[in-house]
Amino acid sequence: MNVVPTSENGSPPVYREIAEELRGQIRSGRYADGDRLPGENALMESHGVARATARQALSVLINEGLAVAVRGSGVYVRLFRPVRRHGALRLSKELWGGGRAIWQTDSEDREYEVDRLRVDEAVPEEHVARALELAEGAGVLRRSRRYLVDGRPVQNAVSHLPLDVLESGGGSSAALRVREHDSGPGGIYARLAELGQAPAHFTEEIRVRMPTPEESEELELVPGTPVLDVARTALTAERRPVEFNEITMDGSAYVLSYDFDA
Amino acid sequence: MNVVPTSENGSPPVYREIAEELRGQIRSGRYADGDRLPGENALMESHGVARATARQALSVLINEGLAVAVRGSGVYVRLFRPVRRHGALRLSKELWGGGRAIWQTDSEDREYEVDRLRVDEAVPEEHVARALELAEGAGVLRRSRRYLVDGRPVQNAVSHLPLDVLESGGGSSAALRVREHDSGPGGIYARLAELGQAPAHFTEEIRVRMPTPEESEELELVPGTPVLDVARTALTAERRPVEFNEITMDGSAYVLSYDFDA
Repeated sequence: MNVVPTSENGSPPVYREIAEELRGQIRSGRYADGDRLPGENALMESHGVARATARQALSVLINEGLAVAVRGSGVYVRLFRPVRRHGALRLSKELWGGGRAIWQTDSEDREYEVDRLRVDEAVPEEHVARALELAEGAGVLRRSRRYLVDGRPVQNAVSHLPLDVLESGGGSSAALRVREHDSGPGGIYARLAELGQAPAHFTEEIRVRMPTPEESEELELVPGTPVLDVARTALTAERRPVEFNEITMDGSAYVLSYDFDA
Repeated sequence: MNVVPTSENGSPPVYREIAEELRGQIRSGRYADGDRLPGENALMESHGVARATARQALSVLINEGLAVAVRGSGVYVRLFRPVRRHGALRLSKELWGGGRAIWQTDSEDREYEVDRLRVDEAVPEEHVARALELAEGAGVLRRSRRYLVDGRPVQNAVSHLPLDVLESGGGSSAALRVREHDSGPGGIYARLAELGQAPAHFTEEIRVRMPTPEESEELELVPGTPVLDVARTALTAERRPVEFNEITMDGSAYVLSYDFDA
């Protein structure tokens, strides 16, 4: 790349051109994981751009999760490392009981986001009704959302809560809070506990398959990437099912880990 | 199909032609799961073949896991249902301590087989040495095999046992038995217990990916089927790693299930 066209003449803005060039060099292996990328000064000189443009170019890669800024040192390539999801530990009562988001445990020190959150009520599909042991025609509260780590979408999750479980707490603040976008400290498990319906046991069922075209788009999957389906049921100490969560994960973004005793 | 060519003129044998025809009718849905297939008498009449030929044709489908013979009643379509593999329960001490094969728990009442068994010694790859906390250059006993359910290959597994763990029992019969094709009642975990190295904890890590061409062939995968990699480490009560098992599963043949408490 020599002379970079500006956005005035219909071409992509300069910072995007520079970001694209750097991205190509990361993909090709010229810059490997952990390498330092050219800094603002180097980009200003090599591409004849202003500092703000150089900074914007690097921000694109950082936002994409391809690079990370280390304060006082520079911007380094950081290729996506899979999320290590620890089946049991992440759902331990100490964590959500202490107001911590489950997702926070998975993502460790990494940037994470939740988007496309939707909360509604529905009469669920048969397999959901079966998992929750619902009476005929009984409704659920549905919380759907997408999770991103380091700016990359990694999973969609649809959580189902039986309406009669929520109504067991009357008009309590916990029952109202689970209907809000932000379900509060410790999330819905902490709210279920406030309703006297604390999860005590979990079962997870894992299946693998190729994605639908819609899932490929939502999770921005590279062609040929399989997805993991994790179906989790949360049960109270009395074995009452209080949540059924259907999670679809980018198979290349996860390592699932489980511990148990003989 | 009317007149069926015989194998004399280079065509497939008649029983295979008939099997192929029935297979096509199962695939197309003309015979659904649980339907009764035409019996020996019906095939003899419709295809003008001898009883032995009709019987052979049905045997092909039974061996493929597409059909099952019910004594005194007939041959029924049985499409493959996934193996439900219960992470913790299957490895509980009560089972292998009681002489039961772990695999027996997974396959429930189904026909299962182990083939392509190979036992050898090796200096393992780095990631295996790390999982087993081996000293530099330390060797392992390797047990490789393939598992089939209802005649269909469902997984390959390569189990690694540190040689120094086996030598800790001197020339004991347990140490010798793990080197044999049949490792005895309760399998290698029961033998490790006899050596004073009983597994007490397990960790399993699950990843998903597309298969290599070799794996597609070994597991007879339908194109586009992903595989599950399960890496299991067995540890003693003192947290000494005594086995590392690398399992590659046909992703369409399994549902993995895990239970745990909050």
